[in-house]
Amino acid sequence: MESSDETVETAGTSTGEAAGSSVAEQDWARASADPQYRAAVVDLLGALAYGELAAFERLAEDAKLAPAVEDKAQLAAMASAEFHHFERLRDRLAAIDVDPASAMEPFAAALDGFHRQTAPSDWLEGLVKAYVGDAIAADFYREVAARLDSDTRDLVLKVLDDTGHGQFAVEKVRSAIEADPRCGGRLALWARRLMGEALSQAQRVVAERDALSTMLVGGIADGFDLAEVGRMFTRITEAHTKRMAALGLAA
Amino acid sequence: MESSDETVETAGTSTGEAAGSSVAEQDWARASADPQYRAAVVDLLGALAYGELAAFERLAEDAKLAPAVEDKAQLAAMASAEFHHFERLRDRLAAIDVDPASAMEPFAAALDGFHRQTAPSDWLEGLVKAYVGDAIAADFYREVAARLDSDTRDLVLKVLDDTGHGQFAVEKVRSAIEADPRCGGRLALWARRLMGEALSQAQRVVAERDALSTMLVGGIADGFDLAEVGRMFTRITEAHTKRMAALGLAA
Repeated sequence: MESSDETVETAGTSTGEAAGSSVAEQDWARASADPQYRAAVVDLLGALAYGELAAFERLAEDAKLAPAVEDKAQLAAMASAEFHHFERLRDRLAAIDVDPASAMEPFAAALDGFHRQTAPSDWLEGLVKAYVGDAIAADFYREVAARLDSDTRDLVLKVLDDTGHGQFAVEKVRSAIEADPRCGGRLALWARRLMGEALSQAQRVVAERDALSTMLVGGIADGFDLAEVGRMFTRITEAHTKRMAALGLAA
Repeated sequence: MESSDETVETAGTSTGEAAGSSVAEQDWARASADPQYRAAVVDLLGALAYGELAAFERLAEDAKLAPAVEDKAQLAAMASAEFHHFERLRDRLAAIDVDPASAMEPFAAALDGFHRQTAPSDWLEGLVKAYVGDAIAADFYREVAARLDSDTRDLVLKVLDDTGHGQFAVEKVRSAIEADPRCGGRLALWARRLMGEALSQAQRVVAERDALSTMLVGGIADGFDLAEVGRMFTRITEAHTKRMAALGLAA
């Protein structure tokens, strides 16, 4: 089943960056006729769903480090938003007749590993992690949206729209660094460790999941060469570096 | 400022049980002119808000005990619902010009104490706690609604409407007891400990918070005598006992 047909489906809207990608012009019914594309999207939704559920769990736990009840409430609000993202992704998996638990299972080890390696030791580390995690997730959702059929893209963009709750952390981290510049060095190291761990777990997933990786490098949606996944990681890392600099942390 | 005026305010709807309570027939603007009533409601909203936030935190933590990702998601859904209850209550405190953190603070020790004393040691204990906690909270919201002005009652009933997420636990606990009847004895003891700890913390709060206790015993809303708070606890305990029996646990 070749999906090179260029017919524009009803729900297909342009996402700007999707030049040359025929999948972006198809809806799910059409695009999923290609079993490899279908497998890739199931992988993607499974990975994102488990990622959101794990993020919920860790943010809720990190909320315990909050010095005041308002701070706790803000991290809890973020956790709750992640849970609703999880619900959307899980419901989508169910709607396309996939068992959500089976779709998530292949990604549990990498995501649990990431969180185990990056348990914050205090409130500021928790804030930096919440902010960095939220921003990297938003970058990834934005990047991947262009490679998706119109229905899956709509879902991903809806989740993305409701992201950005980590912004509250910026003010708090910045004023903590102003009050005690030494903690800036420690937090910069911490942010670098978060990014390093995220990339190493992402590479583990890319190596293990053929269909997902092929989609990310453009093996299905034509117009991307093999180096594209590397460039995507580079773009996300650069955006992270800029954000850290803006936060007063040399990344 | 005596609040014995019988004029029915626009938003005042009957809640059945509110016979003789003139506060129930007033809206917030009128009822809160009585400073003691106002203090009682601020206490109540503060206690409920902290209770919901603490419940969010503990449920999210207990979700880690889940044997499967679907189970984890169900406890996380409950945690997220509690967080939205917290948001409603906090927003209401802010709307009546009360600092939510200050209103919550007096109840933090009792609620944290409850959760510290009742940390589940396994998934089944977590399920029983989620179910029991949810049901007792619903009973309390229902009981207290009748003592409130129409605006505060509307808020409490809206939160109550969105309660009952603990129901999923019933099926799981029941089948666990069927599979291994010995665990029924252990869980019955556990449920009794939960109720005992809840009552002892509630008594601590009642002893310390004059305005709230006076409202609960009907010192403001006339028509309740001094034994009413005791009877309320008794009704809630009886409902708990019935639920435990239905669950296969002799309470």
